[in-house]
Amino acid sequence: MTLTADEISGIDSWFRAANYLAVGQIYLMDNPLLERELRRDDIKPRLLGHWGTTPGLNLIYAHLNRLIRERDVNAIFLAGPGHGGPAAVASAYLDGTYSEVYPRISRDRDGMRSLFRQFSFPGGIPSHVAPETPGSIHEGGELGYVLSHAYGAAMDNPDLVVAAVVGDGEFETGPLATSWHANKFVDPVHDGAVLPILHLNGFKIANPTVPARISREELTKLLEGFGHEVIVVEGDDPFDVHQQMAAAMDRAHDLITAIQQEARSGAPYHRPTWPMILLVTPKGWTGPREVDGVPVEGTWRAHQVPLAGTRDNDTHRRQLQEWMESYRPRELFDEDGRVREEIAALAPIGTRRMSANPHANGGLLRKPLRIKDFRSYAVSVPSPGATVHEATREFGRMLIDVVRDNPDSFRLFGPDETASNRLDAVYQVTDKVFGAEIRPIDEHLAHTGRVVEMLSEHTCQGWLEGYLLTGRHGLFSCYEAFIHIVDSMVNQHAKWLHTTRSIDWRPPVSSLNYLLTSHVWRQDHNGFSHQDPGFIDHVVNKKSEIVRVYLPPDTNTLLSTMKHCLESRHYINVVVAGKQPEFDWLTGDQADDHCARGLGIWDWASNDEGDPDVVLAAAGDVPTLEVLAAILILRKHLPQLRIRMINVVDLMRLQDETQHPHGLTGRDFDALFTTDRPVVFAYHGYPWLIHRLTYRRTNHDNLHVRGYREAGTTTTPFDMVMMNDMDRFHLVMDVIDRVPSLGSRAAELRQQMVDARRRAKEWTRAHGEDLPEVQDWTWNAADTELEGSVS
Amino acid sequence: MTLTADEISGIDSWFRAANYLAVGQIYLMDNPLLERELRRDDIKPRLLGHWGTTPGLNLIYAHLNRLIRERDVNAIFLAGPGHGGPAAVASAYLDGTYSEVYPRISRDRDGMRSLFRQFSFPGGIPSHVAPETPGSIHEGGELGYVLSHAYGAAMDNPDLVVAAVVGDGEFETGPLATSWHANKFVDPVHDGAVLPILHLNGFKIANPTVPARISREELTKLLEGFGHEVIVVEGDDPFDVHQQMAAAMDRAHDLITAIQQEARSGAPYHRPTWPMILLVTPKGWTGPREVDGVPVEGTWRAHQVPLAGTRDNDTHRRQLQEWMESYRPRELFDEDGRVREEIAALAPIGTRRMSANPHANGGLLRKPLRIKDFRSYAVSVPSPGATVHEATREFGRMLIDVVRDNPDSFRLFGPDETASNRLDAVYQVTDKVFGAEIRPIDEHLAHTGRVVEMLSEHTCQGWLEGYLLTGRHGLFSCYEAFIHIVDSMVNQHAKWLHTTRSIDWRPPVSSLNYLLTSHVWRQDHNGFSHQDPGFIDHVVNKKSEIVRVYLPPDTNTLLSTMKHCLESRHYINVVVAGKQPEFDWLTGDQADDHCARGLGIWDWASNDEGDPDVVLAAAGDVPTLEVLAAILILRKHLPQLRIRMINVVDLMRLQDETQHPHGLTGRDFDALFTTDRPVVFAYHGYPWLIHRLTYRRTNHDNLHVRGYREAGTTTTPFDMVMMNDMDRFHLVMDVIDRVPSLGSRAAELRQQMVDARRRAKEWTRAHGEDLPEVQDWTWNAADTELEGSVS
Repeated sequence: MTLTADEISGIDSWFRAANYLAVGQIYLMDNPLLERELRRDDIKPRLLGHWGTTPGLNLIYAHLNRLIRERDVNAIFLAGPGHGGPAAVASAYLDGTYSEVYPRISRDRDGMRSLFRQFSFPGGIPSHVAPETPGSIHEGGELGYVLSHAYGAAMDNPDLVVAAVVGDGEFETGPLATSWHANKFVDPVHDGAVLPILHLNGFKIANPTVPARISREELTKLLEGFGHEVIVVEGDDPFDVHQQMAAAMDRAHDLITAIQQEARSGAPYHRPTWPMILLVTPKGWTGPREVDGVPVEGTWRAHQVPLAGTRDNDTHRRQLQEWMESYRPRELFDEDGRVREEIAALAPIGTRRMSANPHANGGLLRKPLRIKDFRSYAVSVPSPGATVHEATREFGRMLIDVVRDNPDSFRLFGPDETASNRLDAVYQVTDKVFGAEIRPIDEHLAHTGRVVEMLSEHTCQGWLEGYLLTGRHGLFSCYEAFIHIVDSMVNQHAKWLHTTRSIDWRPPVSSLNYLLTSHVWRQDHNGFSHQDPGFIDHVVNKKSEIVRVYLPPDTNTLLSTMKHCLESRHYINVVVAGKQPEFDWLTGDQADDHCARGLGIWDWASNDEGDPDVVLAAAGDVPTLEVLAAILILRKHLPQLRIRMINVVDLMRLQDETQHPHGLTGRDFDALFTTDRPVVFAYHGYPWLIHRLTYRRTNHDNLHVRGYREAGTTTTPFDMVMMNDMDRFHLVMDVIDRVPSLGSRAAELRQQMVDARRRAKEWTRAHGEDLPEVQDWTWNAADTELEGSVS
Repeated sequence: MTLTADEISGIDSWFRAANYLAVGQIYLMDNPLLERELRRDDIKPRLLGHWGTTPGLNLIYAHLNRLIRERDVNAIFLAGPGHGGPAAVASAYLDGTYSEVYPRISRDRDGMRSLFRQFSFPGGIPSHVAPETPGSIHEGGELGYVLSHAYGAAMDNPDLVVAAVVGDGEFETGPLATSWHANKFVDPVHDGAVLPILHLNGFKIANPTVPARISREELTKLLEGFGHEVIVVEGDDPFDVHQQMAAAMDRAHDLITAIQQEARSGAPYHRPTWPMILLVTPKGWTGPREVDGVPVEGTWRAHQVPLAGTRDNDTHRRQLQEWMESYRPRELFDEDGRVREEIAALAPIGTRRMSANPHANGGLLRKPLRIKDFRSYAVSVPSPGATVHEATREFGRMLIDVVRDNPDSFRLFGPDETASNRLDAVYQVTDKVFGAEIRPIDEHLAHTGRVVEMLSEHTCQGWLEGYLLTGRHGLFSCYEAFIHIVDSMVNQHAKWLHTTRSIDWRPPVSSLNYLLTSHVWRQDHNGFSHQDPGFIDHVVNKKSEIVRVYLPPDTNTLLSTMKHCLESRHYINVVVAGKQPEFDWLTGDQADDHCARGLGIWDWASNDEGDPDVVLAAAGDVPTLEVLAAILILRKHLPQLRIRMINVVDLMRLQDETQHPHGLTGRDFDALFTTDRPVVFAYHGYPWLIHRLTYRRTNHDNLHVRGYREAGTTTTPFDMVMMNDMDRFHLVMDVIDRVPSLGSRAAELRQQMVDARRRAKEWTRAHGEDLPEVQDWTWNAADTELEGSVS
């Protein structure tokens, strides 16, 4: 036996206290200690919250506390069933953290009343484990991410144990299903351990769960197939379950310690079989067995609020009273409502309390990223368009130092695309981590490394979130189209960041950075399914203080942008930049200046003398290329036309300053885009986003946007822009159609453009590649007699 | 031995022919039969496509052909590694279907040249298995969905075998990982069988795959844990592999037949252990062993194009020639380029050919849905706002007949939310299908049923897509916030539908219908993580001919809308409607009329006499309620104010008719929304979407939109609208602020509104529920002296 009778009794007191506090939170507005019979007005008018999962979470928390105290374990707790918010709050209240961060919720009768009342109450706290919950880095409202978050937290935290409760409902989701394989991407030497606890309580909202209704043998095979040793705890008698659970915790921790000690002793690597716990207890355990004659405990009916009519139904109210009394509150709390000392003493001390562990409040641990001035990596740009670089490849060079200078606090995540996205320079200083078999044919694969690649965008996103929320830095590089796979995860992270802004005890964490390359215009080779620029549209719906979108047009602007993003805190930064060879436009200093302003006139491409006939604007690398090419045509053939060229790096600058912190004032916007001249705007993504960002602007009616209109296939790069009318020839036509009185030369030029488009199309279909004049094009002012025309 | 030497030799000829045609597609523009030495100009300038997975797909196809011929099996083929497009095209060409649907691609030298040239060539076909590929219902560009598509196809097709190839890269994705459990949701009596074939070729783009690098024992446990009997085929010698594969196919089919026969004999139900095949062959099998001194076959280097320099590098070009010659083309094709008869004869006949099976071209099989006039289910509405119904519950009643009248061609999919979304009336006539253990405590659970629930939005979406693409009807009911989980899948389905529009041999399939209930405004109880109306924004970026968005404001409009959507073809219909008790506004006939128009003036709420001072518009059930409540306040206190009330059901009506087929003409829009009066618009989702849809409209500058601004938490319903300034009180303020010269009574009323908001806030925080006057509010013209004021 692992526990003495006294120890069991102690643990059970904590379990009962936490259950009592959880039920109180769900039901009561007043009379927290049941000092008189429950009355109608003691009960909240709206009963919100989820009882079903709560006792299981309380059990696990209680036993983790014992493990932590006995062995001085450094542990955090992630509740996959985030709906069990009352459990996490109850435990944080029992161990004192809750009152420390929210002094109003004191550890006495008044505090308990406030604790109960605030739960799921207007002006109070959410029903879930949320940013407001001390000790949490995982909301759990949207299911599927607890294991990837847990593994992200464990990375580079060799002494940390991350206990991660997986609900058997969550078990059915796709992201969770594959995240079991995350155990092949932790390194027992440099990373901490994740202890998955699959809690089989058997039911979801209205259905049994799949893992609870396949044979135990089948489930065990599955979990062993995921690479785990399975320790089973099963029962419905609390004392029996306590004894099993204590033994399971000890065993799991023994195994973790043994794995780590062996690996860290320098023994030859072999992939460890990490332990996990399979906990089988009834749904709504210790709650009402039956309500109105139908079974509740152990069924899906215990999922939310088992007694729905407690305010007006006397029987229900009496049942609630009996239920709460069954935890024997007077043994748990003294007459003033204080947790009895012997129970409080079951909690670990100080930051060993899971609710106070700084790893669950990463802003406390975060150190600034070590990163050099981006100009150390800038490419030399003798003149605009004279040189060509692959922007992401150059950024890969910059990452070499970032990786080297932040050896245990920076990671690069991606779904098997780091090399494809041309960031492979990092392999000069690090490897891809892979815990499964490595063969001689493999390259850059090792049991430890800063690059983490699994063909699961969900897992990459979850890892990165877990890594950032525990105070580190990172980057997710992904094909642009497939980042939509994590749309809903981004929503949840944005909500977390937004909520955190108003929680003073949570300092900011590093920004979540996306580098979306292999973007829509250069997925000509992979075809239609790989072409989608809509992730930008998705993120701009989130709170403006959280979201930043950057479209650097060339290598040096990408370097400047990435340095800024990697150093920043508390944002979601979306950077879209191509990986293909593209022209350089700006020197390092120019890029620095341009990115600081976020958008601006490119004088060297403009001849407007402060009074343009037309503004040509571009956001994105391919749009910039097409706009500049169009300008060259226009300036050669219509030299009298005064053109202003504006490039936009920071998309949020287009919005009103009242709509976004980066927004330009109306005055500044008008000065750039004029109040009455036509603006032809070539944009990387869906054109209507530009309208949505600028509809309040004075000159909006004159704004004409070209972008991706969901026309694509497997073809050539130039055919892609032609299919969407964003090619240089069409942009010239757009200008001619919008500037009045350009005369007959313009009409002629327009026809030439129509012909050029036809010729380009025909050439491409005949030769399978782009027209040479389009491929070989460069910005060369001299060639096109521009020098004379620029005053 | 399953095969004789002759049979092996025959199968191998097919395999070689398919490989030859695949390599030809990737590389050649001309000289398809290698009638002369390959020259530079025979080679495409851009080499696109994926060789790595292709030989494995060819092998499987060849052996499925044998099985089909020998046993007259009705089978379709889904290639998870859709990148292996050349394989599917090669097989369809070999069996003749390709030339039947594309007569230009004839079965001779010219046809073969065209076949090769068009692949991944401008104006040609995509590099993936795409809608253009006969026999396909699965694109495979975005990985993860092959099994859910396959199971969706198998449902209600008892005689169909769906062979589904899972790549070992795809194996790592979340959606695929959980879709193995789809085998617990097919019924061996009424559904067909899915034969998963996990193809372990060991590598992704630049990495080994997880399943290839865990022990075979571990992988077997995993697959058995998913519920399968695993039949292994492994090797790199084609003849040996052919022998193994033939035996595996026979064994798999024997098992499938035995399972089905037993189940269909009326024997007591037990969950079958379905077979699957684990196929282990080298990546890029039969391709170049080494290129430039480094190994290629059997490594990640074979992923795309193994010989990259064939146009300009003579050695590479010679290697290509040797590689293609290694298939001995002269044995495969006659001197005119015709497939030799003995090889062509290895294909099944007619619609037994997988490329010609009508199940992979569902529009051929689709029959119209049997559905009654929605007015048979309409609720009685004596006057606007006099009655209350739960819209989705009433729709559930309508579904009873849909389920009954379409017993084998309509299904309802959802992630454990059918009852929560109040559609549970359907359980009067059907059950939820569940193949795992069913216990007495379970309700409405059976081994067969029309409702399919698994806690995986990905799987639900995949099932529904597979079900629709094979010619049936269905509905996905989901919480609004969590439908974002399938954003990227919707993208892919929209692209499929868009592409299909221009393929004449693919008749339209049923629309993909979403009913999003438990929406943003009524997730007050579940909190911030459950609040997100952005799916609408996501879908409207797709091609306008595909996308429809409906926001029915009450029960009868929901019924009318759903009937329309369920009957429609070729769209993605997004319907958002609440499940909570809400007022009825329109009778059945009025709803019919209103939904037919898509938007319109509600005369009974308007007093504008054709010349409004202000337009109040609403889209969505909660916005409609708040707008009507605001109008009641305005008309009571400012009776001289002429108000026009517009309700929008079909959101796409707001767009220009040039932007969307449902778009209103400028003239009609101006007639409704005026050209110069203030419009206060309460919208269900993010307000800027309305601006994005209407920025071209004359009166756009006077349009003021309220909607969800990403402000939410766990609170009350009215507090939710107040947090976003969309409440009735604020709408009254918005009107007063925008209509000039309303006088001192208006200023007073404005102050009353400020006070009302404060009072509502305070009440809610004090009592935990909404102000009674807000809860009890009804539209009652008599009460508010409106009868006199309406002229």
